[in-house]
Amino acid sequence: MPQTLSRVLVLSGPNLNLLGTREPAIYGATDLRTIEADLAALGVELDAHVECRQSNHEGQLVDWIQEARDGWDGIVLNAGGYTHTSVAIRDAITACGRPCVEVHLSNVHAREPFRHRSRLAAVCVGVVVGFGPRSYALGLRGLIDYLRHPRGSV
Amino acid sequence: MPQTLSRVLVLSGPNLNLLGTREPAIYGATDLRTIEADLAALGVELDAHVECRQSNHEGQLVDWIQEARDGWDGIVLNAGGYTHTSVAIRDAITACGRPCVEVHLSNVHAREPFRHRSRLAAVCVGVVVGFGPRSYALGLRGLIDYLRHPRGSV
Amino acid sequence: MPQTLSRVLVLSGPNLNLLGTREPAIYGATDLRTIEADLAALGVELDAHVECRQSNHEGQLVDWIQEARDGWDGIVLNAGGYTHTSVAIRDAITACGRPCVEVHLSNVHAREPFRHRSRLAAVCVGVVVGFGPRSYALGLRGLIDYLRHPRGSV
Amino acid sequence: MPQTLSRVLVLSGPNLNLLGTREPAIYGATDLRTIEADLAALGVELDAHVECRQSNHEGQLVDWIQEARDGWDGIVLNAGGYTHTSVAIRDAITACGRPCVEVHLSNVHAREPFRHRSRLAAVCVGVVVGFGPRSYALGLRGLIDYLRHPRGSV
Amino acid sequence: MPQTLSRVLVLSGPNLNLLGTREPAIYGATDLRTIEADLAALGVELDAHVECRQSNHEGQLVDWIQEARDGWDGIVLNAGGYTHTSVAIRDAITACGRPCVEVHLSNVHAREPFRHRSRLAAVCVGVVVGFGPRSYALGLRGLIDYLRHPRGSV
Amino acid sequence: MPQTLSRVLVLSGPNLNLLGTREPAIYGATDLRTIEADLAALGVELDAHVECRQSNHEGQLVDWIQEARDGWDGIVLNAGGYTHTSVAIRDAITACGRPCVEVHLSNVHAREPFRHRSRLAAVCVGVVVGFGPRSYALGLRGLIDYLRHPRGSV
Amino acid sequence: MPQTLSRVLVLSGPNLNLLGTREPAIYGATDLRTIEADLAALGVELDAHVECRQSNHEGQLVDWIQEARDGWDGIVLNAGGYTHTSVAIRDAITACGRPCVEVHLSNVHAREPFRHRSRLAAVCVGVVVGFGPRSYALGLRGLIDYLRHPRGSV
Amino acid sequence: MPQTLSRVLVLSGPNLNLLGTREPAIYGATDLRTIEADLAALGVELDAHVECRQSNHEGQLVDWIQEARDGWDGIVLNAGGYTHTSVAIRDAITACGRPCVEVHLSNVHAREPFRHRSRLAAVCVGVVVGFGPRSYALGLRGLIDYLRHPRGSV
Amino acid sequence: MPQTLSRVLVLSGPNLNLLGTREPAIYGATDLRTIEADLAALGVELDAHVECRQSNHEGQLVDWIQEARDGWDGIVLNAGGYTHTSVAIRDAITACGRPCVEVHLSNVHAREPFRHRSRLAAVCVGVVVGFGPRSYALGLRGLIDYLRHPRGSV
Amino acid sequence: MPQTLSRVLVLSGPNLNLLGTREPAIYGATDLRTIEADLAALGVELDAHVECRQSNHEGQLVDWIQEARDGWDGIVLNAGGYTHTSVAIRDAITACGRPCVEVHLSNVHAREPFRHRSRLAAVCVGVVVGFGPRSYALGLRGLIDYLRHPRGSV
Amino acid sequence: MPQTLSRVLVLSGPNLNLLGTREPAIYGATDLRTIEADLAALGVELDAHVECRQSNHEGQLVDWIQEARDGWDGIVLNAGGYTHTSVAIRDAITACGRPCVEVHLSNVHAREPFRHRSRLAAVCVGVVVGFGPRSYALGLRGLIDYLRHPRGSV
Amino acid sequence: MPQTLSRVLVLSGPNLNLLGTREPAIYGATDLRTIEADLAALGVELDAHVECRQSNHEGQLVDWIQEARDGWDGIVLNAGGYTHTSVAIRDAITACGRPCVEVHLSNVHAREPFRHRSRLAAVCVGVVVGFGPRSYALGLRGLIDYLRHPRGSV
Repeated sequence: MPQTLSRVLVLSGPNLNLLGTREPAIYGATDLRTIEADLAALGVELDAHVECRQSNHEGQLVDWIQEARDGWDGIVLNAGGYTHTSVAIRDAITACGRPCVEVHLSNVHAREPFRHRSRLAAVCVGVVVGFGPRSYALGLRGLIDYLRHPRGSV
Repeated sequence: MPQTLSRVLVLSGPNLNLLGTREPAIYGATDLRTIEADLAALGVELDAHVECRQSNHEGQLVDWIQEARDGWDGIVLNAGGYTHTSVAIRDAITACGRPCVEVHLSNVHAREPFRHRSRLAAVCVGVVVGFGPRSYALGLRGLIDYLRHPRGSV
Repeated sequence: MPQTLSRVLVLSGPNLNLLGTREPAIYGATDLRTIEADLAALGVELDAHVECRQSNHEGQLVDWIQEARDGWDGIVLNAGGYTHTSVAIRDAITACGRPCVEVHLSNVHAREPFRHRSRLAAVCVGVVVGFGPRSYALGLRGLIDYLRHPRGSV
Repeated sequence: MPQTLSRVLVLSGPNLNLLGTREPAIYGATDLRTIEADLAALGVELDAHVECRQSNHEGQLVDWIQEARDGWDGIVLNAGGYTHTSVAIRDAITACGRPCVEVHLSNVHAREPFRHRSRLAAVCVGVVVGFGPRSYALGLRGLIDYLRHPRGSV
Repeated sequence: MPQTLSRVLVLSGPNLNLLGTREPAIYGATDLRTIEADLAALGVELDAHVECRQSNHEGQLVDWIQEARDGWDGIVLNAGGYTHTSVAIRDAITACGRPCVEVHLSNVHAREPFRHRSRLAAVCVGVVVGFGPRSYALGLRGLIDYLRHPRGSV
Repeated sequence: MPQTLSRVLVLSGPNLNLLGTREPAIYGATDLRTIEADLAALGVELDAHVECRQSNHEGQLVDWIQEARDGWDGIVLNAGGYTHTSVAIRDAITACGRPCVEVHLSNVHAREPFRHRSRLAAVCVGVVVGFGPRSYALGLRGLIDYLRHPRGSV
Repeated sequence: MPQTLSRVLVLSGPNLNLLGTREPAIYGATDLRTIEADLAALGVELDAHVECRQSNHEGQLVDWIQEARDGWDGIVLNAGGYTHTSVAIRDAITACGRPCVEVHLSNVHAREPFRHRSRLAAVCVGVVVGFGPRSYALGLRGLIDYLRHPRGSV
Repeated sequence: MPQTLSRVLVLSGPNLNLLGTREPAIYGATDLRTIEADLAALGVELDAHVECRQSNHEGQLVDWIQEARDGWDGIVLNAGGYTHTSVAIRDAITACGRPCVEVHLSNVHAREPFRHRSRLAAVCVGVVVGFGPRSYALGLRGLIDYLRHPRGSV
Repeated sequence: MPQTLSRVLVLSGPNLNLLGTREPAIYGATDLRTIEADLAALGVELDAHVECRQSNHEGQLVDWIQEARDGWDGIVLNAGGYTHTSVAIRDAITACGRPCVEVHLSNVHAREPFRHRSRLAAVCVGVVVGFGPRSYALGLRGLIDYLRHPRGSV
Repeated sequence: MPQTLSRVLVLSGPNLNLLGTREPAIYGATDLRTIEADLAALGVELDAHVECRQSNHEGQLVDWIQEARDGWDGIVLNAGGYTHTSVAIRDAITACGRPCVEVHLSNVHAREPFRHRSRLAAVCVGVVVGFGPRSYALGLRGLIDYLRHPRGSV
Repeated sequence: MPQTLSRVLVLSGPNLNLLGTREPAIYGATDLRTIEADLAALGVELDAHVECRQSNHEGQLVDWIQEARDGWDGIVLNAGGYTHTSVAIRDAITACGRPCVEVHLSNVHAREPFRHRSRLAAVCVGVVVGFGPRSYALGLRGLIDYLRHPRGSV
Repeated sequence: MPQTLSRVLVLSGPNLNLLGTREPAIYGATDLRTIEADLAALGVELDAHVECRQSNHEGQLVDWIQEARDGWDGIVLNAGGYTHTSVAIRDAITACGRPCVEVHLSNVHAREPFRHRSRLAAVCVGVVVGFGPRSYALGLRGLIDYLRHPRGSV
């Protein structure tokens, strides 16, 4: 049986536009454009349409998450620094009613204490942390599997 | 160039032997045996040898993590309830010198506050949370990618 | 003696544009457009000009609160998720020098602990919480009474 | 269609009998008798029977809240200093099964930190804070609207 | 050797007079009168005179605990909401010099965090929690055994 | 110049009626009646009329403190266990507008941590702690001096 | 009507094998063997089959609690020092799906602060604390009553 | 029977040498020299030899408290800012074995939170707070009474 | 040797556009335009090109800090209310790789507790607080000195 | 109009006498003598008389701050380790009535958490942190400007 | 007089079997076998019989500590990661009634905060921290001295 | 090969001059003079020159630790009450660049909570606690071993 095409929005928050140049010891040398191209390719492989957006503005991320209600099946979200503080984004995830997967490139649990707490994780389906750019890919994979089998096998 | 076979130890902690029967609303209906079989199959697909073990004993988990020093390339670890309290397991991960990926089936961040803190995450490569049995598969994938390209692309 | 017309700005923060569709068990089935129309009608009844605006952007809310300095008598503010985190909005309320009433549709005290603390309440005239869309109406009433009799009777 | 007469108990806790003489800079110059008379009048306007009682005794307030089970439709409660400490009053509100609205004359959020926490708010329908004697009137209005349309419009 | 008749005061605090009607999902369907009758019967079986009293007033509970000094051998106390806040009752227990057993019908440890802490437990002989009305009976049994063998066997 | 007679209310809270018999290692062997007689005598010596009252009821203490507004110059208050918890008594002290001196027989700072914090001290003129029954006498002396010379010498 | 025989597992955790010799001032002079014999006898009286086990190993306790799923009706558990730290045992209780009663010989609330918190109580039916060896007996009684009348009278 | 002459050391800590000029709104207009003269006179009246010393140095205060072991009966101590931080002074009070009374001119409980905690109070006989310069006099009186009747009447 | 011209971006956050009219008792009477003109003049004196920008939007500040990577040598930043909450701005400072000096007009340490903590200070070169508009000038001076002699003399 | 000569006391606390040799990675290579000479020269340039003193003794710093009352216009203070703990120095700053500027060479906010809190900042005019030896110079400049124009322009 | 031979059990907890290979920068290059041989030799020198055991299992450590009751005089214990969490081991130390010395190779106070707290230290005779393998030797020396002169000289 | 003579400074802080007379139940009956003589003798045995000093003044201890930079190889420090509060002493230890060993006679972990935290331990080589006067001897031994083999065997 052919898979229905899944439509996934991949949102990246503040400072992720600097990937590749920003603290490469922590965030790696791959830039966001490359990651997004790889995700699009992975989407094709997984029968999914993937669209990637980035913004430094909390309100813009809220707007985009709300948009997911129309025509999107799920969200992969790296909210960057807003992860730890934003009730507005948390409420947007709940309000939009689409499954959301939280991802982080660095292992936030091995960094400053204020990065250990996520305001968003409790309203997400799952969280992927610490695999560098591959966190996005694993998160996308996890989301698509979830969309097809909300309660499923390996 | 052919991939070298990666050798991965998958360790499950207390009460995970009851998967499938234990609180299925939280943990799903798949039993551990099925998950382990699926992981072995995924290992074959990814050119990895996967061995799965489970114990309810913290000391046994420490012993096994230590064993990873001899002949294993990495660990996928679901330490269950010990995740939140065990300094001994944390020290074992550091001491064994092999990359470890922490996984959880349920979204621990959406449960009791004492499950929000992991004693282990800070010394792991990455963490995968909330995808049910697929958390193991995503963690295995992430680990194997890491073993082959510690700093890599999607 | 005829009442002077009071001019009141009603500001709604992030995700309130989704009212009616967003988690109706918590926020009710009335949409924001209806609430705003009802508030305008109540304004007429109370000899007040009421203007309603909504934004998901913290900075936009700060801009609007600052504008209240020119030609507006007071503010009814539902800052949504920014209520619990925004020092910038708090400072804007103080800086604009106009009385502000904080309102919430849901009973924030019966929800997650991080919703129990308001960064804004201490610099507002008063707070109305938990009456659904009527929180706006009660807040508007309270503000207009305050504007006419800052220290007054029932 | 004629409204059914609503029966509302208005309870005031410790030291509210001194209103008008007690710290007028904080609590205003209106005494409790005047407030209660105004509330009765507002009740008539809103098709409600309003009865007002005051006590300095926590146990007396518990007794009265329990009484609300027989023949009363709802409670407007200013529990004064017991607001911040009384589990007994909280339990009475839950036990009596009648909707309760918490009110405060002063803006408790702008005062000492121990006044920021209410033991009662989580089991009330809503809260009105900071409008002086008008907090009672707004609370009464909110309660009566709630009684007639538990889920309603402005 | 015939047992001396033990004299036990069973005190119930705020809102326990509503048992049977109050939140039956938490507190069960048995009313206080029935519980007290059953305790009296159990007292006869255990060679004890049992007297039961209930009050919503903290001060009244303090008065009664003080009275236990004259002619009573011990106290079974369900202080309800005062359990978590009352230093006055704690001091009364210490001051009266009679062994006291704390009981709760519901499992307070499975409810709101503020119910997890008892101000009284540290000055009681023992605590029985969560068995519904039977908590009183188990507490009475435990107290009477304690009175006869302060250090004893099963 | 003859002194005006000062009128002082000495209020004792819960369990202080048991002084002399209650934990004499902590509270001493003198009973409250003797203390009150000695205070009356000291009052005569200091040109003051002293009236002593005791209650186990928080609300009663609130009532009495409110009464101090009519015909009394100041209060010496040992609120016992309510010292550490009662916002209602604190508010009564502020509301009554008479200077109040807080006294304790035992050294509360050398006992359980919850006795280290007083809800009342911040709204009292001064505090005397730890001198046994003499704490009352020192407090009375301090209060009378304060009444005669609010800002004074030794 | 004849009672069905109830089957109860009584589990004791670390250091309880030393009862009778270990700090008798705190734990009493009765050894574990005697307690277990008395419990078996009480079981006979109450139409229950009682089996007692003790281990110093957290994992062993987890194993035994899991075993309760097969052929046992309930558990009486004194987890000793693991009470305050073990998420693994907590999860085992939930996973096994059998009602569990937590017991402690000493009054843990009168000891060090870290003994005041139980990780287990929230997932148990009830808790019995402070009656020495009789805590086991009271817990057994409470469990058997619960098994026969989950919602019952005295 | 003639009283034995009591020998009392009155020690004042940092910044008390500025009394009279330092923040008179808080500390009053009397200078330390006057207070000390008045204390000496009060000492004569109470059959006590009083010696007053002041230092801004924590170590000097420790030295003097240690000296109290030789020829002094007790200490009245206003440790100023060291009250809230000094373990060294606390240990000196314990080590010297002489009763010590802690005094403060201002009501420390009505000031910044860090002044609410005293490191010293727990090892003093008693504390007198808030009576301005008279705190010294009341403290001296309390100490001398204590020296003559360690357990005494008013 | 002629100084190279330093290029400095001066960024002001929310509500600083109201300087001069906003709470002059706290922030002074100088408006932002005047401050910026004075800073430009000071820049000329110190051989620096100074450009000033202000925004109420957190995301805009993040954008501008990122821009500093191209053609700017350093940043003087008064992030206003975002100082205390913004992880996004903190990450932008780190990501842009230019030295940043944090300034505040008012003495934040003498205000509400939530203003005592800066999310940004730890990733800045230095901080200047409390000198009114001159904080900007001192910060500019400090930054330019730092740019010329990262490790230097007075 | 010629400037009046300002007289400024520059005080350095514990371990600052080791500057230049002490942890140069944190504190730089300039010794205190050089800094003091440079400050004196800067003083001449700014029409100020500058006197520098250093001590490792908290009490000595208190003595010197008190001396500032006679003939000095302000203080630049680097209290070193006492910054974080000394109430005595804080009280001395308040008591002496002269404006004080707090300075630190290192960026205390980027070091151990206990260095993030200053006991002194709240009673100082302003704070300069992190510019190495130049923190003294910036602080001196800020103080002198403040002395000449307490409310001023850039 | 000849010394009685002391019998000492040296117990090492989780991961100490990896000494020499595990993080040598923290734990040094000496393996456990060598340490144990050196301790045996030191035992001979000090007239003591020393037996060394290691386990990764908390329950095993509890078992061994209990065994110390029969034929052993004291314990030197490095409980590794269990030091910071184990109430069970703490209770075993108290229950066994033999003096115990806690040792750590690394300076736990200079590592992660969770290593600063020991659950065991309060029930040990003494603690030796930070001397690498020599911590064992110093602990053994301290224990043997203690066994021979519980209250002694250098 | 002959050992080079090590030069060790042994510093004792406040109240240690009273050893032998001060609370002998806690600190033992040996006076400081005896301890110092024994340490000198032990120094001879270990080829070390030992000089002992004591002061009650924090600043004096800072001065002495700084002096250790000239001609001393290491420090054994019992900072008494300053251990728990002094950042100045901590900074002096770091600044002097000599290894320091912290010692305490009593087991601070078994006393008041404020004694459980050491401000100094994190910058010391090691810590010895609880062996009475022998803590000094063990600390001296540990220090000298460290000086000769910074990374060494038993």
